[in-house]
Amino acid sequence: MSDGPVTSKSRSERPRSSGRRAFLRGGVALAGSALAAGAGGVRLAAAQSSPVTQPLPIPDWTKTPGRPIPPEMYGMPSKYESRFMRRRTDVFVNKQNWSDWSMSPLQSQHGIVTPNGVFFERHHAGTPSIDPQKHHLVIHGMVKQPLMFTMDNLMRYPAVSRFHFLECSGNTLADWTKAASTTVQQAHGLLSCAQWTGIPVSWLLDEAGLQQGAKWVLFEGADGSSHTRSIPIEKVMNDCLIAYGMNGEALREENGYPLRLLIPGWEGNVSVKWLHRIKVVDQPAHFRSETARYTDPMPEGKWRQFSFEMECKSVITSPSGGMKLPGPGVYEIRGFAWSGNGSIAAVDVTADGGRNWQPAVVEQPIMDRCLTQFRYRWRWDGRPAKIASRAIDSTGYVQPTAEEISRVRAIVGFVQHHNGIFPWSVSANGEVKNAIA
Amino acid sequence: MSDGPVTSKSRSERPRSSGRRAFLRGGVALAGSALAAGAGGVRLAAAQSSPVTQPLPIPDWTKTPGRPIPPEMYGMPSKYESRFMRRRTDVFVNKQNWSDWSMSPLQSQHGIVTPNGVFFERHHAGTPSIDPQKHHLVIHGMVKQPLMFTMDNLMRYPAVSRFHFLECSGNTLADWTKAASTTVQQAHGLLSCAQWTGIPVSWLLDEAGLQQGAKWVLFEGADGSSHTRSIPIEKVMNDCLIAYGMNGEALREENGYPLRLLIPGWEGNVSVKWLHRIKVVDQPAHFRSETARYTDPMPEGKWRQFSFEMECKSVITSPSGGMKLPGPGVYEIRGFAWSGNGSIAAVDVTADGGRNWQPAVVEQPIMDRCLTQFRYRWRWDGRPAKIASRAIDSTGYVQPTAEEISRVRAIVGFVQHHNGIFPWSVSANGEVKNAIA
Repeated sequence: MSDGPVTSKSRSERPRSSGRRAFLRGGVALAGSALAAGAGGVRLAAAQSSPVTQPLPIPDWTKTPGRPIPPEMYGMPSKYESRFMRRRTDVFVNKQNWSDWSMSPLQSQHGIVTPNGVFFERHHAGTPSIDPQKHHLVIHGMVKQPLMFTMDNLMRYPAVSRFHFLECSGNTLADWTKAASTTVQQAHGLLSCAQWTGIPVSWLLDEAGLQQGAKWVLFEGADGSSHTRSIPIEKVMNDCLIAYGMNGEALREENGYPLRLLIPGWEGNVSVKWLHRIKVVDQPAHFRSETARYTDPMPEGKWRQFSFEMECKSVITSPSGGMKLPGPGVYEIRGFAWSGNGSIAAVDVTADGGRNWQPAVVEQPIMDRCLTQFRYRWRWDGRPAKIASRAIDSTGYVQPTAEEISRVRAIVGFVQHHNGIFPWSVSANGEVKNAIA
Repeated sequence: MSDGPVTSKSRSERPRSSGRRAFLRGGVALAGSALAAGAGGVRLAAAQSSPVTQPLPIPDWTKTPGRPIPPEMYGMPSKYESRFMRRRTDVFVNKQNWSDWSMSPLQSQHGIVTPNGVFFERHHAGTPSIDPQKHHLVIHGMVKQPLMFTMDNLMRYPAVSRFHFLECSGNTLADWTKAASTTVQQAHGLLSCAQWTGIPVSWLLDEAGLQQGAKWVLFEGADGSSHTRSIPIEKVMNDCLIAYGMNGEALREENGYPLRLLIPGWEGNVSVKWLHRIKVVDQPAHFRSETARYTDPMPEGKWRQFSFEMECKSVITSPSGGMKLPGPGVYEIRGFAWSGNGSIAAVDVTADGGRNWQPAVVEQPIMDRCLTQFRYRWRWDGRPAKIASRAIDSTGYVQPTAEEISRVRAIVGFVQHHNGIFPWSVSANGEVKNAIA
């Protein structure tokens, strides 16, 4: 239902697997035996370590026992990592905090799992605290037998676990034509990834029995906004989950505890949180969140009502806005790529503002509609540079520039679904900044 | 270096992928169209849901806004999930708490990612709280150029992210010949799984340059016990990591913050936490943890000093000890399988104490030396039953019974490396208990 620009290019074979050998193909030739042999490799160690010239003092924490097991047995991060947290927007002042959101610290996320404590969250009337013993799921409408489930019923049901990213349709919304966001957390932090556990919706609808003419399914949350969306039944029966688990434990309250819908690859807000009602119908209900919000302006002055798929996108998370490179030398450019339409086939990186692109290493596991980590070794010569990534998915779709997107859509107001290539500038003094212009 | 029993059986092809179709092959035929067609499928919905006969009251949390974004932006689980935590042993009273351990709640872990807050931990002198700005890693011994790294140096270095399980050699130690543990958390909870991020040790040793005759590598932690282990250099150069990230964020203090060794597939204690020193040598150092501890008694009265590999193992996590089935009907038997020598090829499940075995569905992603989730649909008829799982890895090794292990090793004292098949009994009243005997 989305019709963003597709630039399908013929592409030569690209590295798809990680590992040492693949890595060395991906970027600058690297130290290792080059150091020993005195060959022309990049001497990483020389830049990033010191010779050992004297004994190190024994640190304080080696001289005494550490702390015993605490009474509180759900652990928390080290106090030295207190900057790793969700953050609200820095682009504008959000005048109220019932309909609000907070963003994931992608600049410090290692690998594809977003910790539940910093998983991005968006809510329309605050976060409810629901007692699972009092929560029900009802299935009704155009079904042969309306059904009601307790959480205990659902937990006993057969289940599946699947890794999928989740991205808000408004991610990167403030950075179409000017550099509004400071960091990648602000520009792209409405993006996270988890392994979700739950029940395929199709299994439950099969049991209720669909009536002839059933074409859409309405999903309603139990939060104060009764957030509700209409979803075509083909998608519902194909791959949607009634999820109760994320990253090994129960959903967090901010992410829908005790039950949510999970629609792989589609904009985050359709994955209705705090889910308590499913109604099968013959047409979409045109809810507030599919008329007044979550719609896209088009060039001819019309608005596109349903823009479900999150198209292929990528971003460099390190170096990224707010960081400072200590000096010329070798850096690993790191980032994420993802596509709502499949898996990631390749990622290219440029360090000269798009004139030249080189393939990055795309790290295993590469999964369907899941964050995928890419890595690229870059030797910075100390001169101003502009770095960016470009992802290609398994359908052949190539991530476009914002300028290419603007040719087929109207970029006015709070325009969502920004999957454009995102550049960072590196100045001669090493400062990294948002280079959208 | 381990020589546990290997029962290599010729095996027919087994289901390796998840998904709805594969799932239905794995166990009892299930509802779905069977319900609509009135065929002989198992009617899950009839047992696990209620017809909707009257409108449900609107819950309190729908009538009012929820809580706004809290000042504390690192989120925690719902108060209703407070039982999901690490726990100390219930098998005996640990008289001191400097050398101690706590176990993961596997009975409630959904999918293969163990949340960092409940990742199992074992320490020999408490948990230190290390300031990363004051932490160093030194590489010395039989190298051409000793090197020292700060954490900033290491974080800048190229990295990899890989999913691997970690299991303590003492996992299941109390349950060789009698049912000592109550729950799967107590019997198997010294087992967790994460995506680890760090630097292959080989990349750093390549830069330091190995001298002729280098055969072992000593790794030392900065904790109060200076926990130290000797590792053969072939393994070190093959796949070991200097890890600083787990499941998307920095290591937790309990798991080695800010830096640890990660040796895929080997007993947990060799993956030295709080790592600050690497010494390349020509022979093992015979440290305390490889002489007085972490050694295995053999039948002839000798002790095996090095037993690094964690061999193929599996366990049913649900239903498991301490649970109670509400009545006859269909249940999903869930569990984990893992192998220190490769990936999981298949898992079989028995519900009659081992007389008959049926293949379970092994869920994707199936990764090398990583927890793997299996699922099996079981129709319980209400009579006493004994359930167990048996894993087969990619080398063809079949998980043995404890009795088979006892034929090649001496089961006396605190015997480690128990990878035997683990049974649970289900009584007529639905109570599930440890059935080791």
